[in-house]
Amino acid sequence: MEAKEWALKVRRGDRKAASKLISAIENKEKIARNVLKLLFYGTGKAVSLGITGPAGVGKSCLVSCLITAFRKKGKTVGVIAVDPSSPFTGGAFLGDRVRMMSHTRDDGVYMRSMATRGYLGGLARSTLDTMRVLEAMGKQVVMVETVGTGQDEIEIAQIVQTCLLVLTPDMGDDIQAMKSGIMEIGNIIVLNKTDLPGKEKALLDLETALRFRSPAEEGWSTPIVSTSASKGEGIEELMNEIEKHQAYLRTGEGLSKFAFKRAEKEGAVLLKDEIERAIFHGLKGTGLRRRYLEKIAGGEIDPYSAVEEVLSRFIKDSPQESIRPLNQKKAGG
Amino acid sequence: MEAKEWALKVRRGDRKAASKLISAIENKEKIARNVLKLLFYGTGKAVSLGITGPAGVGKSCLVSCLITAFRKKGKTVGVIAVDPSSPFTGGAFLGDRVRMMSHTRDDGVYMRSMATRGYLGGLARSTLDTMRVLEAMGKQVVMVETVGTGQDEIEIAQIVQTCLLVLTPDMGDDIQAMKSGIMEIGNIIVLNKTDLPGKEKALLDLETALRFRSPAEEGWSTPIVSTSASKGEGIEELMNEIEKHQAYLRTGEGLSKFAFKRAEKEGAVLLKDEIERAIFHGLKGTGLRRRYLEKIAGGEIDPYSAVEEVLSRFIKDSPQESIRPLNQKKAGG
Repeated sequence: MEAKEWALKVRRGDRKAASKLISAIENKEKIARNVLKLLFYGTGKAVSLGITGPAGVGKSCLVSCLITAFRKKGKTVGVIAVDPSSPFTGGAFLGDRVRMMSHTRDDGVYMRSMATRGYLGGLARSTLDTMRVLEAMGKQVVMVETVGTGQDEIEIAQIVQTCLLVLTPDMGDDIQAMKSGIMEIGNIIVLNKTDLPGKEKALLDLETALRFRSPAEEGWSTPIVSTSASKGEGIEELMNEIEKHQAYLRTGEGLSKFAFKRAEKEGAVLLKDEIERAIFHGLKGTGLRRRYLEKIAGGEIDPYSAVEEVLSRFIKDSPQESIRPLNQKKAGG
Repeated sequence: MEAKEWALKVRRGDRKAASKLISAIENKEKIARNVLKLLFYGTGKAVSLGITGPAGVGKSCLVSCLITAFRKKGKTVGVIAVDPSSPFTGGAFLGDRVRMMSHTRDDGVYMRSMATRGYLGGLARSTLDTMRVLEAMGKQVVMVETVGTGQDEIEIAQIVQTCLLVLTPDMGDDIQAMKSGIMEIGNIIVLNKTDLPGKEKALLDLETALRFRSPAEEGWSTPIVSTSASKGEGIEELMNEIEKHQAYLRTGEGLSKFAFKRAEKEGAVLLKDEIERAIFHGLKGTGLRRRYLEKIAGGEIDPYSAVEEVLSRFIKDSPQESIRPLNQKKAGG
């Protein structure tokens, strides 16, 4: 299938074409980028949501509730689960799986899980690419569900407009421990499973923790929403807060600032990926890579000097010289 | 301080010089790499251990027990905690902090925590660099404690010789969910907190899960060790298994294979870092980066084409031509 035809099929909402494209993205097939180039134009307008937090806080259940809520408002929804224990990948409890299954019969919903294994450094890129595919398919809301408190989650929080950090009352001292970092990735904090004991204390802890964190966004005060997703409680309030945050982004320069930041992130990720590819491609078959590695492993050359040597073979000596403003001919050149 | 003098001080075991160097590594100061180049030679012989697993499984307590056990054998120990909730960073329970404090009075132990925030993509590199510093200081055993089940942990598992995956009996269904990926990072599985109920079921689940995983290392059958670190139980058996795995690595080509794999990992990480630095340095002040980003954010150019354009400015047109075998002059050049 040619890139043009493939892109056309995806735009028409063809699920099979979309699914194949996402697999091609995951496998880093070259054709994928040609299709993505075509799909880029016209995208960037969907609402993007991140749903993150530790394992076992009920993220999938919450995602399911949000799908239902958005569908009631007439919005089409795409979901990407970057989560090894997600019901999409068969890892979770039966209840969650059953809940999720109900959406698969809805044409307005498209769900896809992303493998996290083997994606070292490439997860943000493949997630960004997949978000673009879902939007090109016509999905008005794109949700990304991630698990954990590591690098992946921070990266993904940077590429969604509104990020929900999901926690539970039984986290106790863990909330204290999180003060320093992870709290800042949430534009909205969701305290789920509020039928568990300890809700009041957890709310207090969260409020304290929020007070000590540096404000992530000027003019936005991070709300805490209590939910019991398995009973569908608190979802309406959560939807209101999501809408408020989206309205906040739309006010003034919020959304364009976000688009710029996301382009920044995407540009950096792509650039690294492509250079790596170019260099590994260039080294292929020369035996040079292996010789360097053996020398490093053998203690003959330090890795810092080795990398400097490799780089000098690929990077132009004075890249500045060849740089001229975009779309402008070199004067006197 | 000059690089040479700095390296000398670190080699002499100067804690202040080492601590300053690690900070310079975290801040990506240029001098750090010059010192690291000097420190490289002679290192690569320390025993390196990874201790990873979800939050709350008692990793820090286990690390503390292992420090004591290695010290009893007369080994000097360096510990790097890549963990926002580690007692090093003040996030954990008082008991753990007290336990850890006892080691700070021991000259044969050096402990250091690494910030995880702001280290997107750079964590493996700074951890590798810091491991080298601890070894250059003369530490015979270097332990790296990490939290979670994300990318960071998988990366760090790749740069230690022996990786302990720590779990607890109360994980229940989570163990099932982990089958697919995370189990494979452990050369030894530690079931900690075996005073909790559910030990037998957890052991059974783990054995089943291990049976279904692909063998990570030929000729090594991953053992499961039950411990109760807070009571000091099972530590001797764990030490035996660590010694067994180290002996396994020393047999045949194990350790040199590991050294090669680690050089591979380090080379890839460094290369990415350096390329980024070269390109961002080259783009600096040209205004080009901003213009590209604005065009992407504005939907005028797709990021894939933009990156291709940027790359063509930096990468030599035909890198192959400039490649010749290491330490060999170009024929007729």
